[in-house]
Amino acid sequence: MDRLDKYIKMVENRLYDIFPAEEPDHAEVIRAAKYSLSAGGKRIRPVLTLAFCEMCGGKPEKALDAACAIEYMHTYSLIHDDLPCMDDDDLRRGKPSCHKAFGEATALLAGDALAILPFEMLASSLEISPSAAVKCIRALSHLCGMDGMIGGQQTDTAYAGKELSGETLIGMYSRKTSALIKAACLCGVYCAESPDEERYAALAEEYAEDLGLAFQIIDDILDVTSSAEVLGKPVGVDEKLDKHTYVRTFGLGRAEDAAGEYTRKAVEALKGFPDSEFVKNITMLLLSRKK
Amino acid sequence: MDRLDKYIKMVENRLYDIFPAEEPDHAEVIRAAKYSLSAGGKRIRPVLTLAFCEMCGGKPEKALDAACAIEYMHTYSLIHDDLPCMDDDDLRRGKPSCHKAFGEATALLAGDALAILPFEMLASSLEISPSAAVKCIRALSHLCGMDGMIGGQQTDTAYAGKELSGETLIGMYSRKTSALIKAACLCGVYCAESPDEERYAALAEEYAEDLGLAFQIIDDILDVTSSAEVLGKPVGVDEKLDKHTYVRTFGLGRAEDAAGEYTRKAVEALKGFPDSEFVKNITMLLLSRKK
Repeated sequence: MDRLDKYIKMVENRLYDIFPAEEPDHAEVIRAAKYSLSAGGKRIRPVLTLAFCEMCGGKPEKALDAACAIEYMHTYSLIHDDLPCMDDDDLRRGKPSCHKAFGEATALLAGDALAILPFEMLASSLEISPSAAVKCIRALSHLCGMDGMIGGQQTDTAYAGKELSGETLIGMYSRKTSALIKAACLCGVYCAESPDEERYAALAEEYAEDLGLAFQIIDDILDVTSSAEVLGKPVGVDEKLDKHTYVRTFGLGRAEDAAGEYTRKAVEALKGFPDSEFVKNITMLLLSRKK
Repeated sequence: MDRLDKYIKMVENRLYDIFPAEEPDHAEVIRAAKYSLSAGGKRIRPVLTLAFCEMCGGKPEKALDAACAIEYMHTYSLIHDDLPCMDDDDLRRGKPSCHKAFGEATALLAGDALAILPFEMLASSLEISPSAAVKCIRALSHLCGMDGMIGGQQTDTAYAGKELSGETLIGMYSRKTSALIKAACLCGVYCAESPDEERYAALAEEYAEDLGLAFQIIDDILDVTSSAEVLGKPVGVDEKLDKHTYVRTFGLGRAEDAAGEYTRKAVEALKGFPDSEFVKNITMLLLSRKK
């Protein structure tokens, strides 16, 4: 898809502009943050930001800084997730994880920096009004906070090896995965500054909730059906860490059904937008992804 | 000082309002964040935010959300600093540090949450315009980022046990300590939304730079001259971790002179404000503090 490639290039060309010069006395933390940012992610979330902006009638350029903000936040969460006190992962996208490459202290600080950088990026954007920036910042910070992504991580950590209901599992997925995708789509909507913003924001939240659940369930499926070579990270990790997953709770068959069903519901929510073909295509691509 | 007490009470009464309900599946991270926030800090930074707002002609209430934002950021930095991969401190303000009380994973997540919460607080404030909120967010995120507080932490970690020049030491203190104090004072200025904002912001930066250096040097002095009982944390830590401090680099006598000199310069910068008596008193109080 040309448009997908174009969006990814836009993001990757902009991602490092805000980085300070690598002065020798604190260059390592800057290098560590860049290392993890450039480790070849799929850039799904920032692409959604650009796509939602365009779908709401804004030029994608208006949402480019917001898109980078989302990718910083995503990368921070991966760096801290991989730390020894969390999932203790040595590999990420086929390369040594940040703390393996730079040591734990620098990885911790690089993650911290990438959790704060989104707000500098949004507050410095020349493309959007202060009022749009504030809306993006409010959504992103809330959705990534204690009642969002971080809350989901807490549940994930706290319940490893313990009993957990299907309902709590879905709640955890909603926080852990849907929340940041929701922030990505909402930022796109807010950057467009459309008069229909309120209606679009509600649809974006619906879409992102379901896409996030589908996305996480597919992750669970790949953890048991794929190989380390294809995934670029070890497989069977969930079982090893005794983590709750949809597959372990409901079985592979029901997991595949659920991934399809959540994807279908996500696509349904897109019908409220004038031209959603591109986002629909990405959504279907994610359903059939192999890594 | 009645006004100091009044400001501290204002902050402490507002600090927890933004916290989500403690739902069982992720309550621990919320409790851990509250635990560290309530561990009895001096609240110097948020008090400066309120005081600078008032000094620039704004009601202190206008800057209350910003003041809380600063205290969240400060507390996040303490939680992550204490982690085993950083300074590995078991005590903070006379109580077990966050990871000792809640475990490493939860402490990491609580720190992350408190690094993001300042931006939700600022972006949700009903007291200031979106434009003032954006200015506060830009200053805070930049000053705490890779070229600010986090960069200073990186230098601190990277140079432990290695040769470091006096100039690099001061640069590190400026990032590690002055940067957040600068953000605290600037947020106060921006929340006042005064027509003289630009001039006030420049003075606030001057003041905060010098106060931060004095503050950090006094910390170094107390680490060698005080006791664990008075400080509420172990003493002699800098030596144990082989960290660079002003005292270790220049000796105790020169450190005491420098603390006095930076304090004098900080007070000098205050003369550009209409009524700076209160901030001057706090500044002198900090010079003579025993913990």
